[in-house]
Amino acid sequence: MSTSNCLFCKIVDGQIPAKIAYQDDKCLAFHDINPQAPTHILVIPLEHIASLKEATSLNNELLGHLLTSAAKIANDLGIAEEGFRTVINTGALAGQTVFHIHIHILGGRGLAWPPG
Amino acid sequence: MSTSNCLFCKIVDGQIPAKIAYQDDKCLAFHDINPQAPTHILVIPLEHIASLKEATSLNNELLGHLLTSAAKIANDLGIAEEGFRTVINTGALAGQTVFHIHIHILGGRGLAWPPG
Repeated sequence: MSTSNCLFCKIVDGQIPAKIAYQDDKCLAFHDINPQAPTHILVIPLEHIASLKEATSLNNELLGHLLTSAAKIANDLGIAEEGFRTVINTGALAGQTVFHIHIHILGGRGLAWPPG
Repeated sequence: MSTSNCLFCKIVDGQIPAKIAYQDDKCLAFHDINPQAPTHILVIPLEHIASLKEATSLNNELLGHLLTSAAKIANDLGIAEEGFRTVINTGALAGQTVFHIHIHILGGRGLAWPPG
């Protein structure tokens, strides 16, 4: 399901290294290379889905798995008790730079409002 | 499944009014009363789940439904093409104030980075 010119598919395929935080048979999580908080992880599906706009109800179980995996990762990394924020950017104006859907997990500091 | 002292369960039950943007048999979406962007919607499950920390893999389909519904709502409200951000705050340090899980949808303006 990988797309040859997609940065995150290349991480899934092991062609580009990443600091892996978690993986299972449906998703992969790794540390953001430009962290915006003491803990900043990206959770991606192994399957290439460009953005939340391209997702359909057939992807519901997978998308939910990304969210519950994010909570598990936050717990494993010790940021769940204090609190953490999960963010999906959809489209360029929202700040999406890689068009393979990904959930940002941010924690380890207070998070201001509005969220950008 | 409603919890008697939960603000969002009261909105689901119609005890407290809200400006509804979307509803189906599993979720409800309404305009945030303190909007942080020209379009700022909350999507909640009808079922009471306190936060993402309390969700389990049994909730994956429902959580994914909230995300794909968020994309549908963003499209219906005309903010999907430019881009939108979806945010879940989990825990007080992350800014969660109502302990009934909700997805913020923000759009209609550029969204800065970091997200809070």
